[in-house]
Amino acid sequence: MSFFKYQAPVHSMLHSLRVMDYHDDIYDFSTVEALLDSVGRFASEEIFPTNAKGDQQGLVYDPDSFAVKMPAGFNAVYQGIVSQGYSSIALPSDIGGGGSPQVLAYQVMEMLASTNISLSTCPLLTQGAVGVVNAFGSHEIKQQYLPKMVTGDWTGTMCLTEPQCGTDLGLIKSAAVADGDHYKISGTKIWITFGEHDMVDNIIHLVLAKLPDAPSGSHGISMFIVPKYRLDGSRNSAYCTGLEHKMGSKASPTCFMNFDQADGWLIGEPHKGMRAMFAMMNPARLSVGVQALGLSEIAYQVATTFAKDRRQSRSLDVSKRDMNEEADLILVHPDVRRMLLNVRCFNEGMRALTAFTAMCLDKGDTERAALLTPVIKSYGSDQGVAHVSEALQVLGGAGYTQDWMIEQFLRDGRITMIYEGTNGIQALDLVGRKLPKEQGKAMLALMAEMRQDASKLKGVCSEGLSMAIGELEKCNIWLMTHGLKDPEQVAAVASAYLNVFALTLVAWMWCKLSSSKESSYLRLGDYFTQQHLDKIKLYSTRVLAGKSIYFCLNDSEF
Amino acid sequence: MSFFKYQAPVHSMLHSLRVMDYHDDIYDFSTVEALLDSVGRFASEEIFPTNAKGDQQGLVYDPDSFAVKMPAGFNAVYQGIVSQGYSSIALPSDIGGGGSPQVLAYQVMEMLASTNISLSTCPLLTQGAVGVVNAFGSHEIKQQYLPKMVTGDWTGTMCLTEPQCGTDLGLIKSAAVADGDHYKISGTKIWITFGEHDMVDNIIHLVLAKLPDAPSGSHGISMFIVPKYRLDGSRNSAYCTGLEHKMGSKASPTCFMNFDQADGWLIGEPHKGMRAMFAMMNPARLSVGVQALGLSEIAYQVATTFAKDRRQSRSLDVSKRDMNEEADLILVHPDVRRMLLNVRCFNEGMRALTAFTAMCLDKGDTERAALLTPVIKSYGSDQGVAHVSEALQVLGGAGYTQDWMIEQFLRDGRITMIYEGTNGIQALDLVGRKLPKEQGKAMLALMAEMRQDASKLKGVCSEGLSMAIGELEKCNIWLMTHGLKDPEQVAAVASAYLNVFALTLVAWMWCKLSSSKESSYLRLGDYFTQQHLDKIKLYSTRVLAGKSIYFCLNDSEF
Repeated sequence: MSFFKYQAPVHSMLHSLRVMDYHDDIYDFSTVEALLDSVGRFASEEIFPTNAKGDQQGLVYDPDSFAVKMPAGFNAVYQGIVSQGYSSIALPSDIGGGGSPQVLAYQVMEMLASTNISLSTCPLLTQGAVGVVNAFGSHEIKQQYLPKMVTGDWTGTMCLTEPQCGTDLGLIKSAAVADGDHYKISGTKIWITFGEHDMVDNIIHLVLAKLPDAPSGSHGISMFIVPKYRLDGSRNSAYCTGLEHKMGSKASPTCFMNFDQADGWLIGEPHKGMRAMFAMMNPARLSVGVQALGLSEIAYQVATTFAKDRRQSRSLDVSKRDMNEEADLILVHPDVRRMLLNVRCFNEGMRALTAFTAMCLDKGDTERAALLTPVIKSYGSDQGVAHVSEALQVLGGAGYTQDWMIEQFLRDGRITMIYEGTNGIQALDLVGRKLPKEQGKAMLALMAEMRQDASKLKGVCSEGLSMAIGELEKCNIWLMTHGLKDPEQVAAVASAYLNVFALTLVAWMWCKLSSSKESSYLRLGDYFTQQHLDKIKLYSTRVLAGKSIYFCLNDSEF
Repeated sequence: MSFFKYQAPVHSMLHSLRVMDYHDDIYDFSTVEALLDSVGRFASEEIFPTNAKGDQQGLVYDPDSFAVKMPAGFNAVYQGIVSQGYSSIALPSDIGGGGSPQVLAYQVMEMLASTNISLSTCPLLTQGAVGVVNAFGSHEIKQQYLPKMVTGDWTGTMCLTEPQCGTDLGLIKSAAVADGDHYKISGTKIWITFGEHDMVDNIIHLVLAKLPDAPSGSHGISMFIVPKYRLDGSRNSAYCTGLEHKMGSKASPTCFMNFDQADGWLIGEPHKGMRAMFAMMNPARLSVGVQALGLSEIAYQVATTFAKDRRQSRSLDVSKRDMNEEADLILVHPDVRRMLLNVRCFNEGMRALTAFTAMCLDKGDTERAALLTPVIKSYGSDQGVAHVSEALQVLGGAGYTQDWMIEQFLRDGRITMIYEGTNGIQALDLVGRKLPKEQGKAMLALMAEMRQDASKLKGVCSEGLSMAIGELEKCNIWLMTHGLKDPEQVAAVASAYLNVFALTLVAWMWCKLSSSKESSYLRLGDYFTQQHLDKIKLYSTRVLAGKSIYFCLNDSEF
């Protein structure tokens, strides 16, 4: 493993920008390339060396001081990330951010996640918190908190989950009581990522809680900003009372938080906290999909490095044998190439889809970005984790040991299918919230655009896209027909529908990717179409079959 | 988690025996049930409590004494397993075994693996070693070693892999030189499971090495028995020099072994060690598939326990709402049921296929068992691990923590896709060795039997089976047509072919399972057919597409 070196996939990132229709308006490619190169170098040389150590050392919680000690080297690397502006690259320049396009922020996130996903979650959350405070905070609060959050001198959290409610935020019990110009917040929160750590002077919690006169359910939730230290420097009563013990991402503190009459200030309007929450959640969900891509990318790189070094058995094609050696590189074996191609193909397609979605944000098409976000999060993490596992398999026994780190990537990555809303919840968000908005306007526009491309282009990818659009269309009609009559039908097939949509989108991306002069993309596009796209028919069959099959067992028969 | 209790799936195990055609000849069901009950109780009450502790404590290696200390409680439980004869249940009674049918041994293995897969690997390997010594050892060696190995007073290992060769055993460098009536063995072995531990007085290594006059490649390998302690009690020069650090199965020692002029005795004929190795490997591979099933079973039980306790959100079907509670059990949500059904369905189908294969052994149809073995190992572990992950997803964030143990099952289980030959190697074993034997006689007999059942029965499962047989037939013809001309074609599609074969077999099992009066099996059979069996068409498409797609990138483009 000592000879492995992470190489930022800058070429692929630039390719994913170039093939999009409207790139010229926004991006100066030489600047972009220089930036990606410099982040990539920093990620490879400075961040990556902290990664395995962070996993092995883990975090130390001190119950006397309620403090969390980060692993060695994390603080220095964090300071490097923020001081170079990598964590604020796409934040608005009027609040001190880099003002770059969003798409670059997600490409930077991919590199951070490849080289240390635990640490990458810290700026991810701070960026989300900055977005909320900037959009919903009062002028005063913005002035008080934003400058130091943008520089990364302070970090942010989102405090949503409580022991009795994760998915179902309507069950929140945390309470806020007015106290002069602000509120006293009390309650217990769990799963609070970077709720406590020792890399910064202050931690700014965005806390969901209920006012005394709140309506019941999720329409009665308000959001409050609760700093660890008040602005006068005194300690607020927001304490980490313990850490979760997890499968991976062991250097990312997952905190139990206790708020005991903590001082908090309202963000946005009373009872309208869910709106602010979603403003934070959507970009975070995009980032989670990108994190999983980052892990699949570095796992691919490790597996390829291994396959080009390890010799075992002979090629069955005599002409490919290296008779100067006792055995051939395992890269000659078609089953090894198959596994590597699966991973590579996912990475390229997913990177393009992420770039496309971020470009929608850059163009101001937030509705389309919102529609694509649950796909990026759910398909990205489901498939990202599956492909890390496939890369591990290339190494055989070596992949199961800590020596090659893929086992860590797999453990670290498994959380991406869960946090910021499980993938099942993403699917419900897609079919229940994003898709029906304005009578499906965003989906209809997207379908029209994809159809145009499919009819304009020729070749394997384009035929694949046409087929996929047909399947998606069938599913859309099914959802419309059954959804109004019975919402449980839609919920039952939501995950399958998300996959139909995802595969159609990725097929579209391959049309774009393979339209360039670079022939390897054309060949990879054929690979995707021939080896992966036909899964769409299984998923559309599931959609059209409806809910009844999932009730084939009674509760007591489980 | 404290309220979770593993329940041995005795009902399902008995069902999988009853539905097979020829069960009456071999099994006394009341005896079988009593035995499974008693093993299940021991597994639940005695073995399971050691499992999480074993993972957390791990193993301690002492480089001064070359000793490996097992986690607390393991020794006592191991003694319980062997003293009750659970580890020797199906070994021949003439050497002191229980003389029960093989099928029971694999059902016992499932329970051991559910409750502690790390520990279960120890008797698994000893059983394999006993089989080899019994089949290939001289009368003297059998008398010297078998009694204590059968009782479990001594354990066995298989020492195959070396740093430069895992899959490709032809590259073995370990050397054996004659020394009077025996040999001096020297060499380094890696991945030696239970190569060293402190639960028994002696460890019996079966070591592959080459004699000075050996032909090159795998036809020049011999097998030797190398005890840790010679029969006179003196220490042999076979030492554990370190342990691997792994993703999971952390209580199963994976040893570096050094043999330095160690005394060894030939097992079988010179240069014929591969034959003996396979005699050990085939049952071990069956057991590995069963281990993965065991993990998927307990993961299902944990997820079901969770889904029947955790309340979150409301059913979209008003009639299913429990208005006495603030939210409904998550079991009401169709997407949760979908995940649980997927796991349940895999477990039942796989359990039946394993029982069927073991019954072939009991009937003496070793050729058919040999044909099915790579399927059990590869499909069983691929899908077993995938379904542990699906069960984890039911728990959301809780599943990612150590509190519910599924994360451990996932880490522990990932090795089953690798050890005893990676799943890619299983596929090559299937298409290259098992399938072509005697002009495909075993496959032809199986196809005829499946066709007969498909035509005899009616219903969804039977239609599914007919469809699957058609796909398998197409693939068989393709392999025959292309295999002789170009073996690389066969190697390239081997994994896909294995899945076509596996799904056909499982479809057949569902015909048998659902033929009983128990209607839940009929409904689950429909579930399998409608939600899983159609994947077979993707795999058969991959087979028929051949190898060229896997060479779409040049070596340098990876």
